Amino acid sequence: MIEVIAFDADDTLWENEPFYHRAKDDLSRILSPYREADWVNRKLDENEVSNLQVYGYGIKSFTLSMIETAAEAVDRKIEAHTISSILEIAKRMLSAEVELLDHTEQTLLQLSSDYDLMLVTKGDLFEQQRKISRSGIDHCFNRIEVVAEKTPTRYLDILKKHHIKVERFLMVGNSLRSDILPVVSIGGRAVYIPNENTWFHEMPEQEEIEGAEYDELEHLGQLPEYMAALERTLG
Amino acid sequence: MIEVIAFDADDTLWENEPFYHRAKDDLSRILSPYREADWVNRKLDENEVSNLQVYGYGIKSFTLSMIETAAEAVDRKIEAHTISSILEIAKRMLSAEVELLDHTEQTLLQLSSDYDLMLVTKGDLFEQQRKISRSGIDHCFNRIEVVAEKTPTRYLDILKKHHIKVERFLMVGNSLRSDILPVVSIGGRAVYIPNENTWFHEMPEQEEIEGAEYDELEHLGQLPEYMAALERTLG
Repeated sequence: MIEVIAFDADDTLWENEPFYHRAKDDLSRILSPYREADWVNRKLDENEVSNLQVYGYGIKSFTLSMIETAAEAVDRKIEAHTISSILEIAKRMLSAEVELLDHTEQTLLQLSSDYDLMLVTKGDLFEQQRKISRSGIDHCFNRIEVVAEKTPTRYLDILKKHHIKVERFLMVGNSLRSDILPVVSIGGRAVYIPNENTWFHEMPEQEEIEGAEYDELEHLGQLPEYMAALERTLG
Repeated sequence: MIEVIAFDADDTLWENEPFYHRAKDDLSRILSPYREADWVNRKLDENEVSNLQVYGYGIKSFTLSMIETAAEAVDRKIEAHTISSILEIAKRMLSAEVELLDHTEQTLLQLSSDYDLMLVTKGDLFEQQRKISRSGIDHCFNRIEVVAEKTPTRYLDILKKHHIKVERFLMVGNSLRSDILPVVSIGGRAVYIPNENTWFHEMPEQEEIEGAEYDELEHLGQLPEYMAALERTLG
């Protein structure tokens, strides 16, 4: 039987990637006097991925990559207000309201009577904590973990710290790379709920997925029924 | 009797503020064609403090404030290589070796045989975890907590989570505002070890300190002897 259901947050419980998409569109517009949108998008993607290991995830890291892209886009000099506009994008993103996805609230309330619910979110501690406390759903979770990376080792650490047996643990998320594969690799169960906005970096290569056993749902609202069916199979 | 000794990390166990001082000097030099060093330092301090509530602590936040300062320092346009130089400062800081303060290693080894040692550090999760894993002293700690802010509530959360009684808890650190006053306010013990490099923002107003009961040591090497004397008093 499952005791603990852990949820990813960004693009599983609430919108995240759309804020980045809007920011990317804004950057392309801001840099349009210097470069084509395609160039800006490609360069920003490159900078983001290559900076991940030195900056980590989150809006501040993303902003530093936008600024790096801007400095590369211009010939020699850049307007000071262009830099200010990019910083404004960051401050707007950091202050944005949390927008819950459909079914989030109802599903959590429904499951919280039968399961110990946990939040396991990757990213910047400060930014994630702000979103959690603004989300209005933090009271649904008995345990909250913010991690810098979602690796198999990090999941094992979390299970150990909270005294959870891996066979009693189920993870739900929209990222095959961060929520599904590492949990499956340590012997846990995982439910994949694809989100059309998932960042390309969260998508693993086809060969990484092959053989991995996990289930897939269309949306979060299907989870209570899925859990009921799973418990019947296990019980 | 004390069971758990918790340590702050930045400027208590290892150097932190000196890296920021060097970065500030570098920024003043980079912006010297536009402004006097005094102007740059004052503006950067202002931006850092006013951005804390939207960015949080850490090198990436500091870098965004440096870039904001640069955009304000110039008249209308800024050299792209000036922006690149500031980003280089950030990447250098993020990749810097951890420099332990005098007495750190020996003190931790000495105390770890009698006490449960804990690390409670404030700041950016990704940056702090990198420093912890590079420090070579992470094995001394049974528990590690990275928090976004060190408030009384946050300390209470930590004690609750780890099932530690406040009368068995002692916190050691260089920041009156973050390590000493919040712990004293919840009824815990605290040992203040001033560091000449402590950031001005970590220094509380005089009236906040008045009446607060804590002890003060000159350096970390005095802690084992202090603990022995404290246990004699308590025992």
